[in-house]
Amino acid sequence: MVDVAGEHERLDGLFDDLFPLTRSITGPGLRASLDRIGDEMPLDVEAVHSGTEVYDWEVPPEWRITEARLEGPDGTVYADYDETNLAVVNYSAPVDRRLELDELDEHLYTHPDVPEATPYVTSYYERTWGFCLPHAVYEDLPDGEYHAYVDSEFVDGELNYGHTVLEGETDEEILLSTYLCHPSLANNELSGPLVATSLYRRLAERDDRHYTYRFVFAPETIGSLCYLSRYGDHLQEHLAGGLVLTCLGGPKSSLSYKTTRRGDALLDELVRHLDAESGESFELRPFTPTSGSDERQYCSPGFDLPVGQMARTVYGEYEEYHNSHDDKAFMGIEPLVEAAEIVDRVLELFEYAGYYRNLEPYGEPMLSKRDLYPEVNSPETWSDSTPDVRDDEGEFLDKILTVLNYADSTHSMVEIAERYGGSLEEFVPIVDVLRRHGLLVHDESSSEC
Amino acid sequence: MVDVAGEHERLDGLFDDLFPLTRSITGPGLRASLDRIGDEMPLDVEAVHSGTEVYDWEVPPEWRITEARLEGPDGTVYADYDETNLAVVNYSAPVDRRLELDELDEHLYTHPDVPEATPYVTSYYERTWGFCLPHAVYEDLPDGEYHAYVDSEFVDGELNYGHTVLEGETDEEILLSTYLCHPSLANNELSGPLVATSLYRRLAERDDRHYTYRFVFAPETIGSLCYLSRYGDHLQEHLAGGLVLTCLGGPKSSLSYKTTRRGDALLDELVRHLDAESGESFELRPFTPTSGSDERQYCSPGFDLPVGQMARTVYGEYEEYHNSHDDKAFMGIEPLVEAAEIVDRVLELFEYAGYYRNLEPYGEPMLSKRDLYPEVNSPETWSDSTPDVRDDEGEFLDKILTVLNYADSTHSMVEIAERYGGSLEEFVPIVDVLRRHGLLVHDESSSEC
Amino acid sequence: MVDVAGEHERLDGLFDDLFPLTRSITGPGLRASLDRIGDEMPLDVEAVHSGTEVYDWEVPPEWRITEARLEGPDGTVYADYDETNLAVVNYSAPVDRRLELDELDEHLYTHPDVPEATPYVTSYYERTWGFCLPHAVYEDLPDGEYHAYVDSEFVDGELNYGHTVLEGETDEEILLSTYLCHPSLANNELSGPLVATSLYRRLAERDDRHYTYRFVFAPETIGSLCYLSRYGDHLQEHLAGGLVLTCLGGPKSSLSYKTTRRGDALLDELVRHLDAESGESFELRPFTPTSGSDERQYCSPGFDLPVGQMARTVYGEYEEYHNSHDDKAFMGIEPLVEAAEIVDRVLELFEYAGYYRNLEPYGEPMLSKRDLYPEVNSPETWSDSTPDVRDDEGEFLDKILTVLNYADSTHSMVEIAERYGGSLEEFVPIVDVLRRHGLLVHDESSSEC
Repeated sequence: MVDVAGEHERLDGLFDDLFPLTRSITGPGLRASLDRIGDEMPLDVEAVHSGTEVYDWEVPPEWRITEARLEGPDGTVYADYDETNLAVVNYSAPVDRRLELDELDEHLYTHPDVPEATPYVTSYYERTWGFCLPHAVYEDLPDGEYHAYVDSEFVDGELNYGHTVLEGETDEEILLSTYLCHPSLANNELSGPLVATSLYRRLAERDDRHYTYRFVFAPETIGSLCYLSRYGDHLQEHLAGGLVLTCLGGPKSSLSYKTTRRGDALLDELVRHLDAESGESFELRPFTPTSGSDERQYCSPGFDLPVGQMARTVYGEYEEYHNSHDDKAFMGIEPLVEAAEIVDRVLELFEYAGYYRNLEPYGEPMLSKRDLYPEVNSPETWSDSTPDVRDDEGEFLDKILTVLNYADSTHSMVEIAERYGGSLEEFVPIVDVLRRHGLLVHDESSSEC
Repeated sequence: MVDVAGEHERLDGLFDDLFPLTRSITGPGLRASLDRIGDEMPLDVEAVHSGTEVYDWEVPPEWRITEARLEGPDGTVYADYDETNLAVVNYSAPVDRRLELDELDEHLYTHPDVPEATPYVTSYYERTWGFCLPHAVYEDLPDGEYHAYVDSEFVDGELNYGHTVLEGETDEEILLSTYLCHPSLANNELSGPLVATSLYRRLAERDDRHYTYRFVFAPETIGSLCYLSRYGDHLQEHLAGGLVLTCLGGPKSSLSYKTTRRGDALLDELVRHLDAESGESFELRPFTPTSGSDERQYCSPGFDLPVGQMARTVYGEYEEYHNSHDDKAFMGIEPLVEAAEIVDRVLELFEYAGYYRNLEPYGEPMLSKRDLYPEVNSPETWSDSTPDVRDDEGEFLDKILTVLNYADSTHSMVEIAERYGGSLEEFVPIVDVLRRHGLLVHDESSSEC
Repeated sequence: MVDVAGEHERLDGLFDDLFPLTRSITGPGLRASLDRIGDEMPLDVEAVHSGTEVYDWEVPPEWRITEARLEGPDGTVYADYDETNLAVVNYSAPVDRRLELDELDEHLYTHPDVPEATPYVTSYYERTWGFCLPHAVYEDLPDGEYHAYVDSEFVDGELNYGHTVLEGETDEEILLSTYLCHPSLANNELSGPLVATSLYRRLAERDDRHYTYRFVFAPETIGSLCYLSRYGDHLQEHLAGGLVLTCLGGPKSSLSYKTTRRGDALLDELVRHLDAESGESFELRPFTPTSGSDERQYCSPGFDLPVGQMARTVYGEYEEYHNSHDDKAFMGIEPLVEAAEIVDRVLELFEYAGYYRNLEPYGEPMLSKRDLYPEVNSPETWSDSTPDVRDDEGEFLDKILTVLNYADSTHSMVEIAERYGGSLEEFVPIVDVLRRHGLLVHDESSSEC
């Protein structure tokens, strides 16, 4: 059993430790973040050397930064890495120059629509340097000579990611992937990893995991490409479903699911079913390759993995996105605890959502010898054939007959529940009892990959 | 030509002979019923020995009963097998005991919702004994000692069914299956066998049967399972379509069709088409494995045969169901004569409903050399291209061209008729003329199994 | 560049030369017509000997006619081949008889609904003779002896058709087929060949033809059957799409497209898309084998080629159809010039409508190294993820990502454009830029045949 209050406290502390670290797609801040997550759950950290070719990409040199500061003509510091690591363009080249405001201008980044916030700016693959500052500050910058100072270096190092696998009954897998590369951002960075640690703890407690669960923490895009270059073949063979976890905090009240590229993967059907049939509603977004997170890589046409994305207050739809206002107050810890609970429930039901095979498919199995059918067929037991007086026992029997008839490896349990007119949840005990009696098996060969 | 009045009289007599026989899923009453049906049409009666394993089931010992009576404290007989064979639980074990009312109570069965009727109760696979009586009688039973007497035995015997095959041009088959096991019930027992004999006689008269017709009379569930265990492979190879015949009498005015499990079998498409396009309307019920008759076995996932069910006043939807009020007055003979006529018409059209192949598929065949096209193309013959003045000859030609174009083994004749905007019936002469001219053949390889 | 005024003049002159020629399905008039078309574009004329068996047909003997005249009792000439070649039944047998009106009557053809017009009547496969005249004239014919004179002969000759091929980058082909066999009819004869010559000239000017274009001019039905007998196998292997051109003039304002038999060929999808998404609207007609032109042969079940039909004022829907009122005034030259322009545009877009393959399908390709992605990811470049402020650069990037994700040989570019919510036309520059960068190739193996 999950201790909700304890989980809230754990995530709060983890957030505070992770938030100030200067993450990027490589470097010490990324490694420190992976180490810290490794305190919460087992995590194997792996490395890909700088310069490695990864599909159409190349792993960039590792970026290390120690100091960055923009001083005005009178010594006023307008951007200071020590105050916020957002103040410097992520992957900024080193600089130590004095220059006039008009010459400096092309190196300054602001967010005019959110004038009080420092924006988050990156330049991973083009060498440049720059500072980020609130637009309100920028507009009042005095003329004169400025001192731009960035003490950074690009070294022949490595890119890191962390992952772990929780074994289940089968080697068919569920992927839970989240990214780690934005420094000092909350909803659009830490919400995903925090919820992932929470899910790990919930899943590790279960002793009846059917699927094997794979957790991945990697820098966005280049990190998931590195991961795919090493584990993509494995995932293509074993993946039953997956979720990219992102933006799970913020003010939105319900979770938001972006479907897989296929649009009709079992996970898509399940979330649609839950949205329609359970108390839990989901905002449903169709897959698009134009904006999003690492599902863009998992769902690229060469892989086309059945990976959706679970979010809440989605990137690009809130003005705190990619600027210093995306902080703990905006994200909240409570929404993360709730998101972990909901996703956990989705995964629990996903274990039942798939394809089954009736082991006695020729005729109906004899249910009475297994005490699943009334022994004497009298008016009291006719409920199954007279829907208007259907009682609990009649419904139980009807569901058993429905599962046995359609469990032919071509109808998912979601479809079977919907065909009956019920919810998957109601069919969980039916599946359990039929498996116990040796009448039903999960059909691995009908999985998604 | 069917003599409707004669048929009415024949069915009436057959009913009176069959009604009083003590049918069960095995035993002398079942054999006597099959013998009597054998007077109306050829019937091969086969046997499966008690104890034979049939898929997940085992054939029970044969049940024989000679006497059963429940006497009250003062000698009043409250349930008497001699008066109605419904008075004793079907498959009741022998008993000869004197016992108080409260001890007797668990062996008494009534139908509280229909207090004047004796319910029909069975206990095939669990040894028990019991009596059935009207609830109104039950409520006034006096205290005191009762004498429960059932003279029955379970013997190492056999289960019987009857079947016959009417050969057609092809060995592709139509199955007509009905059950025989309920004693002294009318709509939900004898209506099916009676209509089956009527259909046999109608079909036997036709000299142009395309399909081979197979008639099966078997006890419900265990009987059809036995039949499948012997002929299931054959049916899987040869069945083009089938119907379970049940509950074809009673007050409902139109027939009611339960689709096959597939839902899109040719027979399903045909009945939907007839309901929409012909004067004959059918109540359409989707397949369900939760209530029904032997289609539950034929449509179990291991077989998934294209077998639907034809009924009228359906089991479970009328209060006379499974009690002594389901008698000849309730069922009626007239509805059976009419049902046979309608099902016969469905089967006649089914012979045209399937897949055909144009034997001159490269370009249009030359119709004028076969006198199927006007020789001189003048304003009088343009009706085919000007729909608003389409005359009979133009429509005939248009239908010919439509059949020739779509008869490519992938469009059924039902689809072709609907694509044209007409009814299958209108296409019967078109198919006939094109076959006569050697332009069209029925495509067996596109059949349902 | 097409000179529209010049094209108008060219077609007008071509019309005047072709109109009076006595075309039929064989004979000197057909050959003269093909020769004249050969002045406008290269044309290989081929011959099939009389008596050749073509599928279910046989090429009829060649028909040659020099004179035909019907003289009345007082010497009045009521039908004269020298005045209009419609005056004699096409393929009329020779005759030189004097006969009374009542005997003559069965050899006279009129169009009672259009009493002032001479109808067009043929009798290719049944030897008869006859005259066509206005119904108004027919009604006033005096009694007495008439002189029916037709100087024609049937000779062991040939049937001719013309064709030419414009090579493209690939040997996948587009077929443009039109018929040539009606004498002195305009919309329902010459409009097709005239537009075909116009399309040839437009397509020949393009230096970037992806597809190979095949033009066919053949007598209707028997001519296209002859063509299929020689080139049908080639077309089945190479055809990506095709159009029968017919009835492209007349008063209707928009073009009318009859889909292929398949109904979901790429060409069908494209025309539906253009009707919905572009300024150009098309009247859409589903395929029918009952009326139409040579698409009935190309779309016969043995071939089932992806050939649609493009028309404007469609056969059978106007009262000038198949009579002397279908002349240049009714047809007009302007509608033909416009039709050529629209069909040319359809074909140009068809070159982009098909299936493509992303050559870097594992993950997203790295766009920034190809200057297709902003180097610095700052608020100014976020337009791609915030739809409401999407600017041109953002839309360009979104379209690139959309094409790269779905270009997997299973989604046509029409589908990709619709999935994005745009028009195929907008995706033309995207496809071009991605091909230039070596990220995309046209997938020939996904073509229609």
